[in-house]
Amino acid sequence: MTEEHNGLTRRGFLTGMGGLAAGIAVGGLGVPSSMASAGQEPVWPMPYVKLDPEEVRKLGHLGYYEGECCRGAFSAIVGSLQKKVGAPFTAIPINIMAYGTGGVAGWCTLCGAINGASAAISLVSKNYKAIVNELLLWYTQTPFPSDKANALAVNHEYLVDKYKSDKALPPSVPGSPLCHVNVSRWCKEHGYASGSSERSERCARISGDVAAYAVELLNADMDGTFAPTHKFSAEVDGCRTCHKKGKDFDAGMWTRGKMECSDCHDKATAKLVGPDHP
Amino acid sequence: MTEEHNGLTRRGFLTGMGGLAAGIAVGGLGVPSSMASAGQEPVWPMPYVKLDPEEVRKLGHLGYYEGECCRGAFSAIVGSLQKKVGAPFTAIPINIMAYGTGGVAGWCTLCGAINGASAAISLVSKNYKAIVNELLLWYTQTPFPSDKANALAVNHEYLVDKYKSDKALPPSVPGSPLCHVNVSRWCKEHGYASGSSERSERCARISGDVAAYAVELLNADMDGTFAPTHKFSAEVDGCRTCHKKGKDFDAGMWTRGKMECSDCHDKATAKLVGPDHP
Repeated sequence: MTEEHNGLTRRGFLTGMGGLAAGIAVGGLGVPSSMASAGQEPVWPMPYVKLDPEEVRKLGHLGYYEGECCRGAFSAIVGSLQKKVGAPFTAIPINIMAYGTGGVAGWCTLCGAINGASAAISLVSKNYKAIVNELLLWYTQTPFPSDKANALAVNHEYLVDKYKSDKALPPSVPGSPLCHVNVSRWCKEHGYASGSSERSERCARISGDVAAYAVELLNADMDGTFAPTHKFSAEVDGCRTCHKKGKDFDAGMWTRGKMECSDCHDKATAKLVGPDHP
Repeated sequence: MTEEHNGLTRRGFLTGMGGLAAGIAVGGLGVPSSMASAGQEPVWPMPYVKLDPEEVRKLGHLGYYEGECCRGAFSAIVGSLQKKVGAPFTAIPINIMAYGTGGVAGWCTLCGAINGASAAISLVSKNYKAIVNELLLWYTQTPFPSDKANALAVNHEYLVDKYKSDKALPPSVPGSPLCHVNVSRWCKEHGYASGSSERSERCARISGDVAAYAVELLNADMDGTFAPTHKFSAEVDGCRTCHKKGKDFDAGMWTRGKMECSDCHDKATAKLVGPDHP
């Protein structure tokens, strides 16, 4: 499948395991050939209604203190839809995304705010791949915490007792969607320890900011006006001339990805790129 | 919150947005203070029943060809529970995890098989954080594709027409839970392009392998016998002596994470570690 593959039919998605079940029946595993016995078919995409990004920003921020970054961003969107729409959203336990905390159980891989917001997007839009791609591009290029998230905290607009800090926190551009990279960058740039209350609060504000922007994209998607606006950096575009998903191993297509190359690779590191790289 | 924080009560989780709603009502946003109006509370954890890891391995493998890695691993577990248990699993659209493809919309961050399997774990177990941590440790240290996944393909056990390749594929130890790192490693070690059908098939077999191991862990969890057995490498343990989540910035606690350090960091790269690092 190509990187931009999105060819599954809605019916194919709706039936979920239907195709697999039929296939396996042929193979003799003896499972039912349809989901009829379950008496219910999951609704997909679930019926999104437009949400207020500023309400969602607050909910994502607060949601961090209920279950950290990933669950927080997911709860801000899906929890709002549970209240506003009810079923079928009310059948989704918010804890399905609880594992994403700290870049997945503290491994600091994918930023949990991105992970949680992306799951919400995938739940409600057939355009999930393009919207999530745009979310990641925006995230890597935008200073966080946003002025709006900082202002909410400074102005004590709500639930003051939930806050770890009521001061404006200095912003950094994450550069990377990886928790390890962007937490380290922010901490080093501003002199905060990774276990400080300021770092937690920074991630809480980011949970709100990411959920809010996801809602902006979903609202546009619902209006039929969603269009990608963010671009890859010159570096990523340059490296991807050769180092992209493709068929030609000898031309450098033994890798794939969209993250900023220089966050990990450096010409000085023979092991990674090689000093004689053209 | 500490890295190992898991102090939310089950009631707190079950009510989901309840706490938020109450807080916001105080703040004057005017949303209801309970979810009673929705008429339904999400079930969590959902009622897991023990699954056969070998059936799940096949379903994960096949599921890759229905919607790639993340959706494939998730569908192998949650789709099986939809068939075996029915409600409440049947209310979960498998496509909630479709965004995770290619390490999230092709960004090659977190391996989609891990992401999808972890969401399934988070859906059914209060021990999600410990189980997911164990899944990542195992994943980074285990050669993939497994002999079992290779044998399934070579022996044409089922659905031959779905396979991109019926040969045994050479294994590599991923080292990293990041798609970009471990796909590059496997491709370079074995001479396959990232857009080759062999690379796709490798990821399909991994989707099955990861879903199967997740089920082994969940089965043990259900029996009350789950116990972590995998350890961090000496390198990670060593670097984390200083470079861990903590309060002391000057001692190196401006970062956090559990991934192998040397996949990106090298003493030769002044920018990343510094040539005078002790």
